[in-house]
Amino acid sequence: MDKIPVGILGATGMVGQQYIALLADHPWFEVRFVAASPRSAGKTYRELVAGRWHHAKTGGPGTDSLVVEDANDVSRAAAARKRGELSFVFSALEMEKETVKALEEAYAAAGVPVISNAAANRWTEDVPVLIAEVNPHHASVIPFQQKARQWDRGFIAVKPNCSIQSYTTPLWALMQAGYEVRRLAVTTMQAVSGAGYPGVPGLNVIDNVVPYIGGEEEKSEREPLKIFGAVKNGVIENAAFPVISAHCNRVPVSDGHTACVSLEFGAKKPSVEEVKRIWESFSGEPQALNLPMAPSRPIIVREEPDRPQPRKDRERDKAMAVTVGRIRPCPLFDLRFVGLSHNTVRGAAGGGILNAELLKAKGYLS
Amino acid sequence: MDKIPVGILGATGMVGQQYIALLADHPWFEVRFVAASPRSAGKTYRELVAGRWHHAKTGGPGTDSLVVEDANDVSRAAAARKRGELSFVFSALEMEKETVKALEEAYAAAGVPVISNAAANRWTEDVPVLIAEVNPHHASVIPFQQKARQWDRGFIAVKPNCSIQSYTTPLWALMQAGYEVRRLAVTTMQAVSGAGYPGVPGLNVIDNVVPYIGGEEEKSEREPLKIFGAVKNGVIENAAFPVISAHCNRVPVSDGHTACVSLEFGAKKPSVEEVKRIWESFSGEPQALNLPMAPSRPIIVREEPDRPQPRKDRERDKAMAVTVGRIRPCPLFDLRFVGLSHNTVRGAAGGGILNAELLKAKGYLS
Amino acid sequence: MDKIPVGILGATGMVGQQYIALLADHPWFEVRFVAASPRSAGKTYRELVAGRWHHAKTGGPGTDSLVVEDANDVSRAAAARKRGELSFVFSALEMEKETVKALEEAYAAAGVPVISNAAANRWTEDVPVLIAEVNPHHASVIPFQQKARQWDRGFIAVKPNCSIQSYTTPLWALMQAGYEVRRLAVTTMQAVSGAGYPGVPGLNVIDNVVPYIGGEEEKSEREPLKIFGAVKNGVIENAAFPVISAHCNRVPVSDGHTACVSLEFGAKKPSVEEVKRIWESFSGEPQALNLPMAPSRPIIVREEPDRPQPRKDRERDKAMAVTVGRIRPCPLFDLRFVGLSHNTVRGAAGGGILNAELLKAKGYLS
Amino acid sequence: MDKIPVGILGATGMVGQQYIALLADHPWFEVRFVAASPRSAGKTYRELVAGRWHHAKTGGPGTDSLVVEDANDVSRAAAARKRGELSFVFSALEMEKETVKALEEAYAAAGVPVISNAAANRWTEDVPVLIAEVNPHHASVIPFQQKARQWDRGFIAVKPNCSIQSYTTPLWALMQAGYEVRRLAVTTMQAVSGAGYPGVPGLNVIDNVVPYIGGEEEKSEREPLKIFGAVKNGVIENAAFPVISAHCNRVPVSDGHTACVSLEFGAKKPSVEEVKRIWESFSGEPQALNLPMAPSRPIIVREEPDRPQPRKDRERDKAMAVTVGRIRPCPLFDLRFVGLSHNTVRGAAGGGILNAELLKAKGYLS
Repeated sequence: MDKIPVGILGATGMVGQQYIALLADHPWFEVRFVAASPRSAGKTYRELVAGRWHHAKTGGPGTDSLVVEDANDVSRAAAARKRGELSFVFSALEMEKETVKALEEAYAAAGVPVISNAAANRWTEDVPVLIAEVNPHHASVIPFQQKARQWDRGFIAVKPNCSIQSYTTPLWALMQAGYEVRRLAVTTMQAVSGAGYPGVPGLNVIDNVVPYIGGEEEKSEREPLKIFGAVKNGVIENAAFPVISAHCNRVPVSDGHTACVSLEFGAKKPSVEEVKRIWESFSGEPQALNLPMAPSRPIIVREEPDRPQPRKDRERDKAMAVTVGRIRPCPLFDLRFVGLSHNTVRGAAGGGILNAELLKAKGYLS
Repeated sequence: MDKIPVGILGATGMVGQQYIALLADHPWFEVRFVAASPRSAGKTYRELVAGRWHHAKTGGPGTDSLVVEDANDVSRAAAARKRGELSFVFSALEMEKETVKALEEAYAAAGVPVISNAAANRWTEDVPVLIAEVNPHHASVIPFQQKARQWDRGFIAVKPNCSIQSYTTPLWALMQAGYEVRRLAVTTMQAVSGAGYPGVPGLNVIDNVVPYIGGEEEKSEREPLKIFGAVKNGVIENAAFPVISAHCNRVPVSDGHTACVSLEFGAKKPSVEEVKRIWESFSGEPQALNLPMAPSRPIIVREEPDRPQPRKDRERDKAMAVTVGRIRPCPLFDLRFVGLSHNTVRGAAGGGILNAELLKAKGYLS
Repeated sequence: MDKIPVGILGATGMVGQQYIALLADHPWFEVRFVAASPRSAGKTYRELVAGRWHHAKTGGPGTDSLVVEDANDVSRAAAARKRGELSFVFSALEMEKETVKALEEAYAAAGVPVISNAAANRWTEDVPVLIAEVNPHHASVIPFQQKARQWDRGFIAVKPNCSIQSYTTPLWALMQAGYEVRRLAVTTMQAVSGAGYPGVPGLNVIDNVVPYIGGEEEKSEREPLKIFGAVKNGVIENAAFPVISAHCNRVPVSDGHTACVSLEFGAKKPSVEEVKRIWESFSGEPQALNLPMAPSRPIIVREEPDRPQPRKDRERDKAMAVTVGRIRPCPLFDLRFVGLSHNTVRGAAGGGILNAELLKAKGYLS
Repeated sequence: MDKIPVGILGATGMVGQQYIALLADHPWFEVRFVAASPRSAGKTYRELVAGRWHHAKTGGPGTDSLVVEDANDVSRAAAARKRGELSFVFSALEMEKETVKALEEAYAAAGVPVISNAAANRWTEDVPVLIAEVNPHHASVIPFQQKARQWDRGFIAVKPNCSIQSYTTPLWALMQAGYEVRRLAVTTMQAVSGAGYPGVPGLNVIDNVVPYIGGEEEKSEREPLKIFGAVKNGVIENAAFPVISAHCNRVPVSDGHTACVSLEFGAKKPSVEEVKRIWESFSGEPQALNLPMAPSRPIIVREEPDRPQPRKDRERDKAMAVTVGRIRPCPLFDLRFVGLSHNTVRGAAGGGILNAELLKAKGYLS
């Protein structure tokens, strides 16, 4: 099978580079189009990232020689699409929210589907916010989105903020097993890579914790409600529960967000052992479809008292698994645990690729 | 005035050294007696700590030449006391809990009051767990303790675990102002020095978080109830509230514990502005008595969105103040904030010294 | 005595803030004038640094309310000088080198002496590069500088790069004792604060070393030659020795530059014990003049095998002392040692203040 | 082909675990025997390392259920060898040097070859200290070693200290190309994992550098001379050059030793471009033999000004390649560069495995 030609908007940033690295050997997709800021346009990808590459893993040799396009000029992608050299784009744009929103819509309008990592369209009601194991059924809003906006082939699908990925899938697994989650207190200890590059100043992360990340608590409290929501009349209706309180902190960790979670169930409450069984046996549509980027088990349960830990657990199963541990009763609510996921893989580029695989497998991407 | 001669049990450990450093220029107390493990006995203090000194500040010249005693041999302190060369001891013993308990009782029985930093006697019901600004009135159990045990001059008074000091005083200030605190969810990000030396292995604190500290969550959930308790018939009766859930984490920070706190008030609830006013104007007995180690303001309120931070705020007011920030409503409970205190000063040696000053000022130490 | 009114150019940056903090209680100087970029002009100092203050220690209350001037507008300082409200300025300007050079000259031309931390004028041959303990006699070029440029009262004096301060004073002490230093191999491990704020990206300093600092090796190899040079005909003639090879690295340390040094003497070679004696007894003009910012002993020798260490030794003697250790023979050259100094105090603002004190004491600042 | 059954002495320590992880999928070798301290004996490997596993990668399922033997009891390995269940052992023993030396000799005497990571036998003159790309010809002393000690099948081969691996292969490549290296000044910045676990206390590696590692400088100055030595009459005669001066530092890095190197050539001196060409084209016997653990290119040259960096470069080519950069002239000597290698893979377990592969391919291990 010929690989599907894909593009990356914002290809030179931290998340853009992560896409390049993760797609280097992808069995389905091949990066054929890269776009970035106007001042990068016209240079080769290699030229632009040489000396500014943030990851241990590098891109494929094919990527190096690609000439970078101006991401603001949608006609380049539209033309590539017409030549059959581009099927869809991953958006890792790092511009003003309104600019990103308009640009993503312009690409979709031009017939180029956008699988986005950006926050701009997360609160657009006909745009699904996908975690492939949690709400693959939200993809069903895509035809309504296309119809409403008179887009033929293009559409927008996004993924949620990296901060919530360490506990959203575990919560969903419990909900699926019939346990309502009513209230949620979460404190995150987030990695520096979540802020991009240069991102957090070095002085802030030596012998220090910064107990604040702009906008992060608001996202953490709202986004799960859309993900857990129901599709009605072609739009997503937010769930009413759980009510969430989030404290988000920046800690001296390169990759891997850790979350301390306390939660309250509805009337029906599982035991700790039941929770472990549910999580260990949880499997979603990506696993059923055997998608290339899917972790074999979405949730890994650790029994050691002091796990998960970012340095030891973030890379598990292609850095796509969520690792949980310290599952125990909560004196205030019902259950406590610690969750961890890799923020630039599971929480960003890897999650985006898995979404694209899901949408491809479900027929939304031709 | 001649200075009061004091001793330190466990003088060579991390907290013991902190006592030495903080007492170097103390206006009331002078270190004249140091004790440690049997294998240290007979050597000079200087010999023992040379090459193993953990702090930037050093001890006074007088301390260097002191010959270290065997802490297990109570007779040495008893004799020093009879010679008028020792009034009381600070206990920073780092042995088995039962051994520490027995030893502290033996010193007290021998007429040497013990101001302890250790956990061994925190749950002895006639032993006060003092935070000088919060429950100085608990000192009133000391005469009952002495009578019950037939001790004439000796007694034991302790301080709580370092993990709770970043929020206990702020909570107390609210209670004093008439606001009952019913429930408390707290997640701590604790410094490495809290585990002593060598303590936490270096590999655990590079690019990592360890979401577990043995015994710390239990202490954090129980100790505030004793501190907030009432004295009845010569013993301390624990408070019933707040119900506490604690997640305790070790982060790559040298000194300074940070706590993310959500709390629920009783029927009467203060506004955020009211909370700030209460904290900024809070003052306790150490301030009224103008004790040497007392911070001028026990609680410092920061208005910046990203404070408190360990590296910037832990040293405030002799490292004895608690700094709070991010005071805001909580979607789950009523109020959220972040608290920070210096764990080896306010939370250990400095807190112990302040307790001794308080007890001296109140007439318990002659 | 009324305090001398001083100003700070670049007052809001990292080094500028350090000046403010260190001058808060200065016995001779009082900050009465602060200048920064045009967009800061007109705001109060407090407004500008609130939420962006980098140090634990804060400025004096008087500084908070100062209205910040545009540093590019020399007339403001000139007018203040005429009103008797400004005697001289400290320059911590962080602009283009040519801009800084021109601005510092403009202030001097307007009658305002400039004590600079910037690199711009370090290679101007009639501008002294002062380390107060090493080459106070270089101040004698100031009258020649004033005459040549037809400046009446203004002049420029600078301090060297922070990277060389951990070993320049120890080298000088040996030279003064009659031991010629011919060759020097140095590898530095430099703190993040040396790059200002935001400076080094956080991702670069977590679990990492960056073996490169732009321009730093060149400065490290050239500046000592000027400092060790001789004054001839009103200009400074560079020394021919030592020949220096510098490797400069950035390490995950907040403050404190560490240097591993190997050196070769001329024909006359001291023993290790002789070296220690020379360093321990070394004293310079700042000590003789008892200047307020002078460390009581400029060089502290540690005997422990594993010192100096940044976290434990950088703060010694107001963070103005150089700490040396691991003094031992070198298989390649003659002597090896490790030196450490605080880069934003001794190596920046503190060094600048000491230079100003020296120039005041010697009559160059009225 | 059936895999060769191998054993690991000291299997539960940090390096022992690294052997287990790296051998999990090895095409030639299979771990069938694990030994550790007497108190570990009789427990399953899984039991012993659960909760104390230091790496992200885990061992194969077969290893988990192995029952750990007492490493002091050589008869267990001898019996396994007779049953055909053990061919040779990797030694990662972490005991007293004399004990390790005696034990390794006892295993060899019992017919079990020992491929060692320990320092104990590095200065035994008939024991080769192998870096597979540098001195594979030193293996020729093995038959002399066996004959002299009357061992039939057993022998001892070791690898050098991790600190020298970042520059020894580059130096050798230059020597092979005809350029004598006369003098070498090296400063290392070494990772915490080099000290094992618990190893370096956490407080030493937060905001700090420790400019000392016991014994490391001596090893760094002596071991290269044996590796560069010649085989004469069945023993290895040390080379006379280069004369080396080493400064060894511990920095806050988990894995990956960085070395700043200045070197002086003999009369014939290569240009910087020539050096790059030599390094980029260098290849050794492991590459010629296509050994499984061999990096495809032993030396990777980076052109960016700020590389190599531990976090970005340590994992290259199975973490077995040495990465060099900043190749430039030296004002003191002739050439400067920065070298980096992974200390627990290339510098420990991975290097040991490559040595075993080499010895197998050359017929020393049957």
